[in-house]
Amino acid sequence: MATRAPLVISVPEPVYADGLADVDGVESVVWDLRAPHERQAEFRLVVPRYISVPPAERLQGLPALEVVQLLTAGYDSVLPVMPDGVTLCSGGGIHDASTAELALTLTLASLRSIPQHVMAQAQESWAPQRIWGALADKRVLVVGYGRIGHAIVRRFAPFEVSLTVVASRARAGDDLVERVHGIDELSGLVACADVLVVIVPLTDSTHGLVDADLLARLPDDALVVNVARGAIIDTDALVQACATGRIRAAIDVTDPEPLPPGHPLWRTPGVLITPHVGGATSAMAPRAAALLRRQVEALRDGTPLINVIER
Amino acid sequence: MATRAPLVISVPEPVYADGLADVDGVESVVWDLRAPHERQAEFRLVVPRYISVPPAERLQGLPALEVVQLLTAGYDSVLPVMPDGVTLCSGGGIHDASTAELALTLTLASLRSIPQHVMAQAQESWAPQRIWGALADKRVLVVGYGRIGHAIVRRFAPFEVSLTVVASRARAGDDLVERVHGIDELSGLVACADVLVVIVPLTDSTHGLVDADLLARLPDDALVVNVARGAIIDTDALVQACATGRIRAAIDVTDPEPLPPGHPLWRTPGVLITPHVGGATSAMAPRAAALLRRQVEALRDGTPLINVIER
Repeated sequence: MATRAPLVISVPEPVYADGLADVDGVESVVWDLRAPHERQAEFRLVVPRYISVPPAERLQGLPALEVVQLLTAGYDSVLPVMPDGVTLCSGGGIHDASTAELALTLTLASLRSIPQHVMAQAQESWAPQRIWGALADKRVLVVGYGRIGHAIVRRFAPFEVSLTVVASRARAGDDLVERVHGIDELSGLVACADVLVVIVPLTDSTHGLVDADLLARLPDDALVVNVARGAIIDTDALVQACATGRIRAAIDVTDPEPLPPGHPLWRTPGVLITPHVGGATSAMAPRAAALLRRQVEALRDGTPLINVIER
Repeated sequence: MATRAPLVISVPEPVYADGLADVDGVESVVWDLRAPHERQAEFRLVVPRYISVPPAERLQGLPALEVVQLLTAGYDSVLPVMPDGVTLCSGGGIHDASTAELALTLTLASLRSIPQHVMAQAQESWAPQRIWGALADKRVLVVGYGRIGHAIVRRFAPFEVSLTVVASRARAGDDLVERVHGIDELSGLVACADVLVVIVPLTDSTHGLVDADLLARLPDDALVVNVARGAIIDTDALVQACATGRIRAAIDVTDPEPLPPGHPLWRTPGVLITPHVGGATSAMAPRAAALLRRQVEALRDGTPLINVIER
């Protein structure tokens, strides 16, 4: 078999080039797409920097370009700069493990009173013995059952909880749940949700999905967990519902974001806030490397790409 | 069939009597064993209060007594007061879910930097974007593979970690691990433990098991999690190892306990402390009720009791 010209691609950081170094027939060039590159006419696949939108004219100047491969699951901001005839692939999957893990972390930290224990530790104060809260036996409702929702449910499963899931449309169950409820059933289901985990994409129909009415339907002492986007919850309604002490929240995303100093959410009782750290962890790089490897091998071999965005 | 006299037992709180109300042929009397009871000659099974030792003379004064059923997994303190010929049953299993859940909570809270986020929230400060730590991809070593150890491993399994377990003796694996390593392999195994979870009983051989030498063998950035007993770790060695920033710890038990104000462990960097809250949670009561039901039905029917302590 004759030697073929290598598939030349660009990656935003040396770590990704290193991860692809042993892939036969692929040459990775480190390029951040900010300034023109002397080899840009060769690039058939480019990987923009994490959470960046490349300049439209830069992508237009790549005559061999076939694929833009993102490192984020979201892609809306890149759509306007995509040249015609070029395939856009999302980074879906790269953040699943990390985000699902944070949903469990926020749930457990809140239900097991870690914020109180952290504050008591700073005071060098050992709390008197009493009966504390726990996750076991709770009824957990996961709203959003895509890949991250599935990863969340898989992690909840061994904790001796009952699990109910909601997706945009009702469908049959799988190895983890008996059935998947439709979003139209949500307002009825929340009445039995001790833990409500939100992991739906932000769209016109999910904006403000968790509003004052839905929060009012939650049982007493319920916990709202958001690892999706802040605007899915009505922030004012959440502050009011938590301020009474009736429900609690543990959220990685806020609206507005970043949450400005002085915003009432910071000091609302029973609210635990992390600063949008769901995806940006040590779990990201190896999963990004595995996805890039899979995609460049597919492009090299002419087999189907995954995570292709229809547009 | 002739009506038989009911099995009369004592329970320490009304909630347990309520839980047994529908068990045929069993009458539950609420009694805390502090003062004599007018029906004490009838009690064939007694349940002392949670974490209490009944007076020896009280137990001696129960002529029908066959079984003392504890609500704690530990039983050493009750052995000296047990009358001859009476069976002692531990509350083993009641706290498994809650304690295993706390092991995951401590691990996740520490690795996902929840203490830092709690402190930042108190300052109304949104942390700048960076790459944070995570549990995914970590090598988890669980030392102690009884029922709680097993419950811990089951909860770690979906988190995309590698799991290794150590018990007192090496044996074949199960549905969760390929094999169970013996405690003699511990000092070699810790060199690959990003997370070291301790859940062994406190005995002469486990006292100080995690000492300066073992801590020194842990890889950089390792996390030590203790949900067993404080004295299994050499506290001074732990303070020294964490103070350098080389390793971290997340512990529910301390030595001494309660940890007094001014003890250096309170303010050692990278140490998260909870005040021995592993077992005393909302998960306890339903599991205690289920165990009591199982045991009184066995005593009523003449079938074998579980959790019988050999003495």
